[in-house]
Amino acid sequence: MNLALLFESDFTAPDRALLTGRRRVHLETVLRAAEGDRIPVGQVNGKMGHGEIIRLTETEAELAVTLNRHPPAPLPLSLVMAMPRPKMFRRVLQTATALGVKDLWLLNAWKVEKSFWQTPWLEQPALTENMVLGLEQAMDTVMPEVHIRKLFKPFVEDELPRLIGDRTALVAHPGTSTPCPTHLNAPTVLCIGPEGGFIPYEVEKLEQAGCQAVHLGQRILRVETAVPVLVSRLFDGCV
Amino acid sequence: MNLALLFESDFTAPDRALLTGRRRVHLETVLRAAEGDRIPVGQVNGKMGHGEIIRLTETEAELAVTLNRHPPAPLPLSLVMAMPRPKMFRRVLQTATALGVKDLWLLNAWKVEKSFWQTPWLEQPALTENMVLGLEQAMDTVMPEVHIRKLFKPFVEDELPRLIGDRTALVAHPGTSTPCPTHLNAPTVLCIGPEGGFIPYEVEKLEQAGCQAVHLGQRILRVETAVPVLVSRLFDGCV
Repeated sequence: MNLALLFESDFTAPDRALLTGRRRVHLETVLRAAEGDRIPVGQVNGKMGHGEIIRLTETEAELAVTLNRHPPAPLPLSLVMAMPRPKMFRRVLQTATALGVKDLWLLNAWKVEKSFWQTPWLEQPALTENMVLGLEQAMDTVMPEVHIRKLFKPFVEDELPRLIGDRTALVAHPGTSTPCPTHLNAPTVLCIGPEGGFIPYEVEKLEQAGCQAVHLGQRILRVETAVPVLVSRLFDGCV
Repeated sequence: MNLALLFESDFTAPDRALLTGRRRVHLETVLRAAEGDRIPVGQVNGKMGHGEIIRLTETEAELAVTLNRHPPAPLPLSLVMAMPRPKMFRRVLQTATALGVKDLWLLNAWKVEKSFWQTPWLEQPALTENMVLGLEQAMDTVMPEVHIRKLFKPFVEDELPRLIGDRTALVAHPGTSTPCPTHLNAPTVLCIGPEGGFIPYEVEKLEQAGCQAVHLGQRILRVETAVPVLVSRLFDGCV
């Protein structure tokens, strides 16, 4: 927690907030903060600044909050990702959030196991919890939007072309001949397949929707590694 | 397992190998391979090619092995990393290996908890196991070397300047004023701090040893995200 993210329910006055639970424990045990100390804070979907600890008890920390800075710029990216296996999904969601992804689409694909969609990590409280961890890590406040699409074909045929609009659209596909562009730094839609990749039919449908198939080199990377590698390569001006 | 890595002990003849245990189970349950199928294989620290399954039983798979391709190019990088917490270390070791890191130095630092050095993941069989997983993921054969340095000062004063030689040397340090260079694609030593970062004394010592402090932008990333982001940014011609 490099920044304590404050929700509307944490505020007791426009410039006063109470931290309880995990965030208070973190203050005490990790940051070893005391009354009078200042810690970085941010208001969900709002500004960042600092909170001065004016009271610290065994159950809560009261902060005098000053919000005076904008959060870091969002990535100009819609990330369309085949639903990963649950354990990996949780980490990828935190990582994508920490990297500044604000628009995440979870898509079905042939090699996505049906059971992946049953994970409790897809329920809203769990999504929020993991995005909060990502924002607190990266010192950001703006919550990503997560869209769940359990049907590949209707999404790719009907929604994806509109989502792309006049943006660059890429599908990361090992074995294709075009290398992924570097420092694009422009609005982009990026599709990433499941473990084992999109099948040829799926790549073809994505290409018909306007995506260009690109590769990252000879190495096959896990989605949790491919996401930071791709984001860093495409947006070296933003990350 | 995108490639089955073969050790000397797996070979029964120059062109015959037996897979048992995890690798045989993977063949059967994930790849659903049958006799006559070809799977990608590689010889540890040697060439890659394919193995034709000539016999598949409940305990072993016999492969007719053809090795005819070189593994992907190694990254021209020595990665010097403050020892991460054990769970993260395991993932970072796999990730760094998958990205093509061949020279990894694990270093003590002020914010490295003493207990991190006690992890069984640092024992040679566990190191090998996780590097094998990284190589099998990325389709590579060349095992990284891991160097363990539990004393910061002697390493940074005596060994690091020699390790750097005439290479570019960087220390990733959030909050510094110089941004990390992009597409360097040249021999590099890269130092990454622990959770919470190197302390100012440590950054100063690293700078004295020849490292330039660089930042990755406003966002603070976990080491497991920072490694692929940095590698992708520095070596877009290699990854």
